[in-house]
Amino acid sequence: MEQITVVKVGGKILEDEATLQALLRDFAAIEGKKVLVHGGGRSATKMAARLGVETTMIEGRRVTDDAMLDIVTMVYGGLVNKQVVARLQACGINALGVTGADLNLIHSHKRPVGAVDYGWVGDVDAADSDMLGNLIAMGAVPVVAPLTHDGMGHLLNTNADSMAGAVATALARLFDVRLVFCFEKEGVLEREDDDSSVIPIINLEKYARLKADGVVKDGMIPKLDNSFDTLHRGVKEVIITKAANLTDLAKGTHIVL
Amino acid sequence: MEQITVVKVGGKILEDEATLQALLRDFAAIEGKKVLVHGGGRSATKMAARLGVETTMIEGRRVTDDAMLDIVTMVYGGLVNKQVVARLQACGINALGVTGADLNLIHSHKRPVGAVDYGWVGDVDAADSDMLGNLIAMGAVPVVAPLTHDGMGHLLNTNADSMAGAVATALARLFDVRLVFCFEKEGVLEREDDDSSVIPIINLEKYARLKADGVVKDGMIPKLDNSFDTLHRGVKEVIITKAANLTDLAKGTHIVL
Repeated sequence: MEQITVVKVGGKILEDEATLQALLRDFAAIEGKKVLVHGGGRSATKMAARLGVETTMIEGRRVTDDAMLDIVTMVYGGLVNKQVVARLQACGINALGVTGADLNLIHSHKRPVGAVDYGWVGDVDAADSDMLGNLIAMGAVPVVAPLTHDGMGHLLNTNADSMAGAVATALARLFDVRLVFCFEKEGVLEREDDDSSVIPIINLEKYARLKADGVVKDGMIPKLDNSFDTLHRGVKEVIITKAANLTDLAKGTHIVL
Repeated sequence: MEQITVVKVGGKILEDEATLQALLRDFAAIEGKKVLVHGGGRSATKMAARLGVETTMIEGRRVTDDAMLDIVTMVYGGLVNKQVVARLQACGINALGVTGADLNLIHSHKRPVGAVDYGWVGDVDAADSDMLGNLIAMGAVPVVAPLTHDGMGHLLNTNADSMAGAVATALARLFDVRLVFCFEKEGVLEREDDDSSVIPIINLEKYARLKADGVVKDGMIPKLDNSFDTLHRGVKEVIITKAANLTDLAKGTHIVL
């Protein structure tokens, strides 16, 4: 099967003109078919502050009431997404900006109210392989904003990592998928804060050892669990790396079964 | 050839919950293939006021500096477009929200600086028949926001009537196109302010007479010139009517060659 690369970048990279420029140039240079999934993050917090809307985060997740939903819709679906599209077009990449609501590409449901009511937040169920495949077959490079819908007319603020995972697993029916999570470090590190200690390959066996030894811990555990989950659902390879390494994916940590 | 209906609605209709609901229900009920082109208008002015950005209009057109470009990108490309998409999805319509930058669907250029510098404003050149045709063939109902790009990475604030005209003429290569401009009156009126005096059909000969008699004047002249222009470029019929008449297009004024 043909290869496709699904790249997830956080909102932080898109907020700074220099890192955004570099990201888009590097993404444009990736050979073959590709998809970009972007977060939003702090740009929505800044816009909320300008509009006098209070931001409430619980365990790193944004509580999304009516006013905050309008803000993330504007910022993620409009400002960030369309600026990325226009800039990729200028790099010769035929970008198509979408949310999960567009073409009903990514199915989700409103997060049930438990101990916390997160409001208009979506939990991803699955992405539509056929529709994504059709878009890619016509030459489109999807640029996915972290919004979905509930099928009843409401948009939902949705985690970009989960969306990237759903897109990657849906495309695994049609392509050999490489899923690249860009984050602030060079990869999964043997020694915390030593960027030269990147672990090049982690398989299930190695992962068990790294956890037992306490090398992989805290926030890295859900990241790796999520990576193995997509591998179990057909993705060929997950790479955790710095955005600056997009042109050299041999760097970074490669997660395989 | 198969028929397609291209509907243009102003931003005003989308701002009010009751008229928006009615519009989307009526648009969903239109049989066959269709495209929705929406304006933005006053919602951007309101957001600009909330953000402390001054709105300058010259001859009814918005001067678009950097700050205003961000606002129209957020409001037209994000808030309005994605809310319409989510609501149409809830009506069973497979909406895909796009700007002219997405898939490079609508080509334009930045308006040259003349007596007035409108800033980041686009003048439409043409829409891409093939790409629009591909999207429609895969079952998409495009929902077009009034933004284009300059090919150099900048978005451009663009007139929604012109975008609807470009979409309609591009689709005329593939379909029998009906272009429907929704506005606040029942149609072109024989007697100003008498909504019962709708002129049912206007052809070129009748148009000349209506202008000579002073029945058609002022702002209606560019509207009709624009309509005849699309007819000369292959559109089969242009209908000028109230949004409330979308389910009965026999009403309103039908412009034909």
